[in-house]
Amino acid sequence: MERTIAKIDVRQADQTDPLRAFRDRFELPEGVIYLDGNSLGALPKTVKQRVARTISQEWGEQLIRSWNAADWVHLPQRVGNKIARLIGAQEATVVAADSTSINLFKVLSAALQLNPGRSKIISEGDNFPTDLYIAEGVAKQIGKDHQLVLADTAADICAMLDEDVAVLMLTHVNYRTGYRHDMKALTKAAHDRGILVIWDLCHTAGAMQVDLAGANADFAIGCGYKYLNGGPGAPAFLYVNPRHQGGFRQPLSGWFGHRAPFDFDPSYAPSGSIEQYLCGTPPVLGMVAMDEAMSVWDDVDMTAVRAKSVALCDCFIQNVGAYADQFNLTLVTPRDADRRGSQVSYSCDNGYAIMQALIARGVIGDFRAPDIIRFGMTPLYLSFAEVEGAAAILKDVLATRAWDAAEYQVRGAVT
Amino acid sequence: MERTIAKIDVRQADQTDPLRAFRDRFELPEGVIYLDGNSLGALPKTVKQRVARTISQEWGEQLIRSWNAADWVHLPQRVGNKIARLIGAQEATVVAADSTSINLFKVLSAALQLNPGRSKIISEGDNFPTDLYIAEGVAKQIGKDHQLVLADTAADICAMLDEDVAVLMLTHVNYRTGYRHDMKALTKAAHDRGILVIWDLCHTAGAMQVDLAGANADFAIGCGYKYLNGGPGAPAFLYVNPRHQGGFRQPLSGWFGHRAPFDFDPSYAPSGSIEQYLCGTPPVLGMVAMDEAMSVWDDVDMTAVRAKSVALCDCFIQNVGAYADQFNLTLVTPRDADRRGSQVSYSCDNGYAIMQALIARGVIGDFRAPDIIRFGMTPLYLSFAEVEGAAAILKDVLATRAWDAAEYQVRGAVT
Repeated sequence: MERTIAKIDVRQADQTDPLRAFRDRFELPEGVIYLDGNSLGALPKTVKQRVARTISQEWGEQLIRSWNAADWVHLPQRVGNKIARLIGAQEATVVAADSTSINLFKVLSAALQLNPGRSKIISEGDNFPTDLYIAEGVAKQIGKDHQLVLADTAADICAMLDEDVAVLMLTHVNYRTGYRHDMKALTKAAHDRGILVIWDLCHTAGAMQVDLAGANADFAIGCGYKYLNGGPGAPAFLYVNPRHQGGFRQPLSGWFGHRAPFDFDPSYAPSGSIEQYLCGTPPVLGMVAMDEAMSVWDDVDMTAVRAKSVALCDCFIQNVGAYADQFNLTLVTPRDADRRGSQVSYSCDNGYAIMQALIARGVIGDFRAPDIIRFGMTPLYLSFAEVEGAAAILKDVLATRAWDAAEYQVRGAVT
Repeated sequence: MERTIAKIDVRQADQTDPLRAFRDRFELPEGVIYLDGNSLGALPKTVKQRVARTISQEWGEQLIRSWNAADWVHLPQRVGNKIARLIGAQEATVVAADSTSINLFKVLSAALQLNPGRSKIISEGDNFPTDLYIAEGVAKQIGKDHQLVLADTAADICAMLDEDVAVLMLTHVNYRTGYRHDMKALTKAAHDRGILVIWDLCHTAGAMQVDLAGANADFAIGCGYKYLNGGPGAPAFLYVNPRHQGGFRQPLSGWFGHRAPFDFDPSYAPSGSIEQYLCGTPPVLGMVAMDEAMSVWDDVDMTAVRAKSVALCDCFIQNVGAYADQFNLTLVTPRDADRRGSQVSYSCDNGYAIMQALIARGVIGDFRAPDIIRFGMTPLYLSFAEVEGAAAILKDVLATRAWDAAEYQVRGAVT
């Protein structure tokens, strides 16, 4: 039976919103309803000053001395520990580093080493493509035996977990549909069959609390630029369960993963801790922006974040639901909040043009091929009134066929 | 016979310096003689405003739209093409991406695939350690057959190039000694034996003109934060000879290396061009700083850079030479300018403490274990008077045994 969503009183919801003060911590343009914070999070107000100080004082005046004096050298660990709190990870199990793709390469390589004699990597055909591309790259480089096997639907995964599977690699919240896996149950099912599990938290971290330690996950990765608001191309993160931190090597064995990088030893001796998952010199400007963006989260109650996220999604589903059938919009995000992340997606014809027309009217969401229009709900800086307003503008775009103008049909690259 | 260095008239050299106007393009702190631009280049004045604009306007106001509107998506290629001009590479053969370590992983993996049936990677024991660590990582991951073999001295390399060598991987200018290899001759010697060559240009790019295309090099890598002045942890770069751009895959096969990243195809189809060497989402803040830093080079005559670099090194060697024996400083950088990069290094006892005492007096160089004090010469923002002044302060530190104070003896991490 389909879940019924109770009618939300938008004015009251905004008045009683326990997170409403956080909107002031962000720069948001006038005249825009920003429903794409699941692609690029908004700018936290203090980031500009912090980066400016890093450039002028730490780089410009202190120069090389800032590696120690400003402790640039430990930014990956410092930022990692801030992220750890939001994803249920212990201190010293998370670092900020590189990109999500590269971090997946590290942990997948490690997981395959830790589970030798098994040949399969299981994932989903609808996983975010770069995860699948990286798995192909790892499998090809390691040798002939590993193969990536893709489930057609989430429901098929459990039956695929046989004794030849080394690693189950899933994105917790699907980037197109917003469908959310049951992390604890799938991790347990995999472990029961001797399989290691990697969770991609790109659409999770900062959108809801998760409990990696409680789920006994083996590895996790995620990006810094979506719900965490770290800025475009922000450093990504990775988590390694403490039980996997020694005893093997990840292949991107750069100097920052060495036990004593500044001894300039010609032989690699891996750090026995999470630092082994660092590789080259950390990107200081991006790390500093990310570090500053993470400071917003110090005061955030993640239970309130999740409650508001559910309510914002419900509000949008309810408002769009009033006209969805009329314009052939099909909700692809689960109505059941326990099975979804923090976005609402519809499949429809002319999705690219519809989204361009919406953006032209100040409602920024995004389009995902082949036919998905996607609306991200970010509890720290969205109001219920905005969500209701966006649904009204979408209706108008559809009713007036505003999308059917030549300028909205031309495809550009959109991330 | 040792080369004699002609006496340099410092005042006249500064007056006639064709590059003297470039100093004004950099922020440099009062009271500092900065001889560590080979570790972290100085801050170009326009970087702060450019990054601030990217944060406020492109990120803060335009948000996700800037991937197209501000063309963030092509930063790796745009910055790469600017670097290409300085290293003798053609358009569309260089991209800015990731770190030097990660870029080496990509090109070394590619080179080994392109030269199957050969087992050895040749490098030097005194290569920068992260290059050796990455080679270990690649060799371990690919399988049992590859081994890293290290030459004890540069003179031994040629004799080691036998028919079982797949790749010769060298840093053009040694990070400790400043010794510079003959790129053209070694590349030819390797090619004559069917060996592919990777050049690490970390201590080359921006310090002198090189001609990768003329040398017929196969691959090159390098960092953005030394002579190129891209900022701490700036994006690194890599070069791939056009003849190697198709026909194989590098293993870090992230979505930015896909032929059509925004089609979200579940199968990886590599770009047939240099883009295949991109992996994850590019770090925009670091890329923008690097792009802006590279704009300084638009007006720079690289022949003048090299001539001034040689003269600055000669000036320092000459001035320190007057007292080197007295204080047991041994010049480890070649006197022959054709065999060195743009730094001057001495081995000595108490090198760490001596460098700390120098830094306390405003002369910033660095120490490299076990016994090297190192002085980088950056022609865009150093004067001959400063170099002469640094030599005088070094003499005073040695003559007064200023380094023999407790506070200079404690080792910290210095990059």
